[in-house]
Amino acid sequence: MCEANAYLIENGTEQLVLERVDKVIPGQKDIYLENIFGERKVLAARIKELHLVDHKIIMEKIPPADAAD
Amino acid sequence: MCEANAYLIENGTEQLVLERVDKVIPGQKDIYLENIFGERKVLAARIKELHLVDHKIIMEKIPPADAAD
Repeated sequence: MCEANAYLIENGTEQLVLERVDKVIPGQKDIYLENIFGERKVLAARIKELHLVDHKIIMEKIPPADAAD
Repeated sequence: MCEANAYLIENGTEQLVLERVDKVIPGQKDIYLENIFGERKVLAARIKELHLVDHKIIMEKIPPADAAD
């Protein structure tokens, strides 16, 4: 299986927020994640980088100024 | 290997733009793709959806109005 683990950068370190993510749908102010077990999360974050061979989705928080747009 | 194929939606259909993508870095006005062969592309697009189990990165063009921000 080729799902990836989703990490959110907090205080400069990657925090695992959801494992084995299949589906990712970025929005304007948030991001929707769904994994192979049907678990879903919506975070006020955006994709910073994907490293699919390493099974990593790296996200960063959306700054409040951007979220206010 | 768990890379994915990158598609750009054009005229309502998914056009394959780069195969076996490993690394994806979204920017404000474009997106950087790099595959396992070292091929790189930068497109004026953003991620619409990821379906990792299906090995798909689906992108849409950034509308000119957004790109002008």
